[in-house]
Amino acid sequence: MNTQLNNTPHRRYNILTGEWILVSPHRTKRPWQGKTEESKTLKTEKYDPSCYLCPGNERTSGEKNPDYKEPYSFVNDFSSLLPDAPKIDFQDGLLKAESEKGICKVVCFSPDHSLTLPLMKVEDITKVIKMWKKEYQELGSTEGINYVQIFENKGAIMGCSNPHPHGQIWSQSSIPTEILKKSTRFKDYWEQHKRSILSDYLEQELEAGERILEENDHFVALIPYWAVWPFEAMIIPKRHIQHIGQLSESEEKAYAEILKKLTIKYDNLFETSFPYSSGIHQIPTDGEEYPEWHFHMSFYPPLLRSATVKKFMVGYEMFAGPQRDITAEQAAKRLNELSETHYSEASS
Amino acid sequence: MNTQLNNTPHRRYNILTGEWILVSPHRTKRPWQGKTEESKTLKTEKYDPSCYLCPGNERTSGEKNPDYKEPYSFVNDFSSLLPDAPKIDFQDGLLKAESEKGICKVVCFSPDHSLTLPLMKVEDITKVIKMWKKEYQELGSTEGINYVQIFENKGAIMGCSNPHPHGQIWSQSSIPTEILKKSTRFKDYWEQHKRSILSDYLEQELEAGERILEENDHFVALIPYWAVWPFEAMIIPKRHIQHIGQLSESEEKAYAEILKKLTIKYDNLFETSFPYSSGIHQIPTDGEEYPEWHFHMSFYPPLLRSATVKKFMVGYEMFAGPQRDITAEQAAKRLNELSETHYSEASS
Ligand SMILES: O=P(O)(O)O[C@H]1O[C@H](CO)[C@@H](O)[C@H](O)[C@H]1O
Ligand SMILES: O=P(O)(O)O[C@H]1O[C@H](CO)[C@@H](O)[C@H](O)[C@H]1O
Repeated sequence: MNTQLNNTPHRRYNILTGEWILVSPHRTKRPWQGKTEESKTLKTEKYDPSCYLCPGNERTSGEKNPDYKEPYSFVNDFSSLLPDAPKIDFQDGLLKAESEKGICKVVCFSPDHSLTLPLMKVEDITKVIKMWKKEYQELGSTEGINYVQIFENKGAIMGCSNPHPHGQIWSQSSIPTEILKKSTRFKDYWEQHKRSILSDYLEQELEAGERILEENDHFVALIPYWAVWPFEAMIIPKRHIQHIGQLSESEEKAYAEILKKLTIKYDNLFETSFPYSSGIHQIPTDGEEYPEWHFHMSFYPPLLRSATVKKFMVGYEMFAGPQRDITAEQAAKRLNELSETHYSEASS
Repeated sequence: MNTQLNNTPHRRYNILTGEWILVSPHRTKRPWQGKTEESKTLKTEKYDPSCYLCPGNERTSGEKNPDYKEPYSFVNDFSSLLPDAPKIDFQDGLLKAESEKGICKVVCFSPDHSLTLPLMKVEDITKVIKMWKKEYQELGSTEGINYVQIFENKGAIMGCSNPHPHGQIWSQSSIPTEILKKSTRFKDYWEQHKRSILSDYLEQELEAGERILEENDHFVALIPYWAVWPFEAMIIPKRHIQHIGQLSESEEKAYAEILKKLTIKYDNLFETSFPYSSGIHQIPTDGEEYPEWHFHMSFYPPLLRSATVKKFMVGYEMFAGPQRDITAEQAAKRLNELSETHYSEASS
């Protein structure tokens, strides 16, 4: 690390997207007089009769959830994408559009309404991972589905409309912008070095140490050098694999363990149920080979200073590019100083 | 317009960024059970003793604002960018960073605390435009400043920490991501057609009519075909000019008029002081020629269904790409049905 950069406004380069992020380390002392969010206390009821994701309850569609005991998935009642979109290719001068097919699913992580990933047992998180694996493979082998996006929006501040522990999967025929960007970078590096750029990056980060959050036999969690969100993190498998379907049994368990550890740290940071959007980036399911790709998961949490003050990605960020105040190293340091036990379970 | 697309999930192509946006027109009936925002009533006090932007008041820096009567600008007390950053170019394996110089300014639009653009007189909005012009030219000709981003964050929901009518300008040495994307597209089109892509697009939109919001002698306001935010709009000068400094007196006035009309429509939509981030995209000030560029302004407003329900750009949007529910044509139709008089001034 060039320590001069700790006090100087600078840009950092994202090796996966080819884009830059503006870092203003001197700006952490800015007072906040703007909007604050409600702080969320942990839920306590294991079952909520009005929750449309709890076992046995009726959904808006009129369908009834089974009395599920394990992770449960179903087709989203308000899917953004539909499997039967007619094929349309439209071009009229500078107007260009095309129809898009897809399948959107909801994945309930647990029947227990009160839980979240950091509060779940490792063996139950492993079941969620197995479900993601199964969905990736099933959706991915469906005719016309060329890409599968697994993600979780956690917390009302992240547009999540139901606190029951759940994530979503949107799968579709075209390959989205963010994946195309990363594909280019993975490929360029592969062609030059016949190595995964993420394997080499991981090696360098493990050597440097200062941005590492957690490590086990198969996975590493870290704050990427080019993090945009204040406490953005990445989970990267040590083995160079292209998609979640390639995980071995022991890798699944190691993945569950590191997911739990990272999300406990998050909750402990501001002693709140920490909001974020997380997502898995992996290869398209269009049947092409992508030896260069390296599957990984990212967390984009909006909170900046407390359970109620978030970072706004607005004016400058929308029109120019992302900006952050604290550095990636400062964020890693803060998370690493926290207890590994969830604050709600710490004996006092 | 291909009317089949009105009911079919589809992607639209953004001719300025080369990126796609997912449109789900069938999804407008989705019930909303998630987070709602506070609805904002209009301010009434013309002067707020606790506002650090009101004339005569003291700022956090200890400095005192002059008793200004016209738009007033000053260097941001908590600038993200600083003019005296030492030159650092850092590369260590896959870590890459460089220092960034810049100047951040705040522009108070009016001494009157209670106003916003839609409530200001056209002649006073013209003064704001003259101030933007002056700042663009002065900052742009400063040594080491190669790009000037003019923007406004309006409303607490857009991270704005003070309701006094104001915008910001962040100027810097490197050219930001969003500008680089657009430069590529402007240039490609110019090389093929020796025309501004926006001039041709404007011609096509005026012909089609269905996405036009306002038009006068010199400017057009419209919902772009590829709009991302529910009521996103663009203001485009009819004359192919590269930057705000080229505006004639009559163009300045026409710009002020269309700004007022568009923002009145916005306020009238949900009878609220309508939040948004707006920004001007124009050529870098690095001394290069950019004959292909066409200056324009965009508005990114977050509200979707009411003064309290916004669109969240979260999970899928962050990991894959943007998604919207209502179409650009539906948004234009809704805005065009509204009165041209601000709801607070309508006689009842
Ligand atoms: O400078 P302000 O108004 O305090 O801050 C606001 O605008 C900035 C520029 O878009 C953002 O970086 C901040 O996140 C936002 O809260
Ligand atoms: O599908 P949900 O949870 O109702 O909706 C949430 O996630 C979607 C996917 O990221 C977003 O498009 C919505 O804006 C957000 O509110």
